[in-house]
Amino acid sequence: MEALSALAIKEAAERIAPFVHRTSILTSHGLNLMTGAELYFKCENFQKVGAFKYRGATNALRQLTEEQLKNGVATHSSGNHAQALALAAQLKGVPAYIVMPENAPRSKKYAVLGYGAHVIDCEPGQIHRETALDKVISETGAWFIHPYNDRSIIAGQATCALELIRDAPHLDFILAPVGGGGLLSGTALAVGYFSPGSRTLGAEPSGADDAYRSLVAGKIVLSIDPKTIADGLLTSLGTETFPIIYRQVDRILTVGEFAIVEAMKLIWQRLKIVVEPSAAVPLAAVLGNEELFRNKKVGIILSGGNVDLDKLPFK
Amino acid sequence: MEALSALAIKEAAERIAPFVHRTSILTSHGLNLMTGAELYFKCENFQKVGAFKYRGATNALRQLTEEQLKNGVATHSSGNHAQALALAAQLKGVPAYIVMPENAPRSKKYAVLGYGAHVIDCEPGQIHRETALDKVISETGAWFIHPYNDRSIIAGQATCALELIRDAPHLDFILAPVGGGGLLSGTALAVGYFSPGSRTLGAEPSGADDAYRSLVAGKIVLSIDPKTIADGLLTSLGTETFPIIYRQVDRILTVGEFAIVEAMKLIWQRLKIVVEPSAAVPLAAVLGNEELFRNKKVGIILSGGNVDLDKLPFK
Repeated sequence: MEALSALAIKEAAERIAPFVHRTSILTSHGLNLMTGAELYFKCENFQKVGAFKYRGATNALRQLTEEQLKNGVATHSSGNHAQALALAAQLKGVPAYIVMPENAPRSKKYAVLGYGAHVIDCEPGQIHRETALDKVISETGAWFIHPYNDRSIIAGQATCALELIRDAPHLDFILAPVGGGGLLSGTALAVGYFSPGSRTLGAEPSGADDAYRSLVAGKIVLSIDPKTIADGLLTSLGTETFPIIYRQVDRILTVGEFAIVEAMKLIWQRLKIVVEPSAAVPLAAVLGNEELFRNKKVGIILSGGNVDLDKLPFK
Repeated sequence: MEALSALAIKEAAERIAPFVHRTSILTSHGLNLMTGAELYFKCENFQKVGAFKYRGATNALRQLTEEQLKNGVATHSSGNHAQALALAAQLKGVPAYIVMPENAPRSKKYAVLGYGAHVIDCEPGQIHRETALDKVISETGAWFIHPYNDRSIIAGQATCALELIRDAPHLDFILAPVGGGGLLSGTALAVGYFSPGSRTLGAEPSGADDAYRSLVAGKIVLSIDPKTIADGLLTSLGTETFPIIYRQVDRILTVGEFAIVEAMKLIWQRLKIVVEPSAAVPLAAVLGNEELFRNKKVGIILSGGNVDLDKLPFK
């Protein structure tokens, strides 16, 4: 199958431009001193619904025909893709059916309901999610939009790195966190096409290091019983995202839980912004690999800012 | 005595421009829906040292002659003015002597030391602060820069509203929190000169409502044993700030502690930024006075973002 083209990413950027925020890039003198690098933080916590996921969901939904959209859209997600698809559907005026595990944070469920979507509860676990989703789709005829293993999702997520590359040129490295790989594969494609002198790195929690192990094994290694505070990074790579990451990502750096919380705290304290644990994983990787980044110009994608303020990890 | 002129504020803006951030203004569709108003948040949490105080400290210090500066500068502060003056002095290359009460947050003390200032510990309480300061000044010959009761400080703080007025014109109201009144008096002056169609409102915790009581009494009522989470708003108005506020501030709105924490939470959740409790007081006032602000265009000065992440009030 043909790879996603540069044109597809540029078209995605144009398609979603009326609906998404062109998020700002922040810098911190203090964090530069601390790391010895020159850091550029791309603030997707400021994106609509508080996460980059809105880019992919909007691109995927806006690419569908009226015929494909006529019964609405559906997905399964416990996290930011759920909110992203719910809002994208609301703005397009089509129903959204979101399968969410019973143990998903209540704040996320309310957010999805707030965007006018139908929430279908299911038991936790991939198999239960998929069964519930199949049922919803067969009952409603809704169009399934996968959280990450979908080329139009990947093209949408790639627009984030495209903006970063345009606003902060000549980066040595661009880092993105990796869960299912939608953001990382999109980032790697954008870097390859629009900033070939830069290198793409993934950042992943040691407690959910299936992407790291997949690159080592040369095939998708599933994420079994992952344990990390970075709740956006629990999923396994997909058949669409793995090959791109395998080909185009330089390395995946893994980081421990303590390092994630410390990096998150630094971002809150120094940049004065709220980011979720998953978004702090790339900075943790920079802090843990000083030699690699010293005197380098480094782009960091802060993937989102959705946290429960009453369950913060700061002691 | 002559009032601070429009020219003095414009000159302050030019004087400090090379040293301060022109902070961004954020909006939130969700908060607009919730309040029925159109809100513009001026993000001084993104200012250097994380608070508007850096404007006044820089303006005051940069107005001094070489002769006045030759022995450095001194102040007493448990909060953001301490950091602000320390950094302003460091950049100018003169010593700073900061008297801080022993119970000041350790993070603030370390920040001040980090900017190369000398920290002089004293017992808590106004009288102890002043005694310790007098001693430092007589020993060092340093020039005293008061945290708020100083015309060059007020002119510096006024530059924040000046930017807000320029970037978000035609505001019906501009709200600032009030402690010693440096920010509020500067805001009121800037509004009077540069946006006479707007009205300036102060926002104050009920547990530290000396400014409200001062406006009622028509004279400075001292802040005795104030109790509030908004630790930047504990001080009394000064002889420089009170007359401006008395003449030019429309009203002071008071808010309870619960309302402050809820407003702070909303800012963190919706704007995805970190602000300190004092900065949330104006939004709390908007939420508590729906009728007054409905369908109005409202500028809110988010005064700072310095909080101890391990002592957050969210339950």
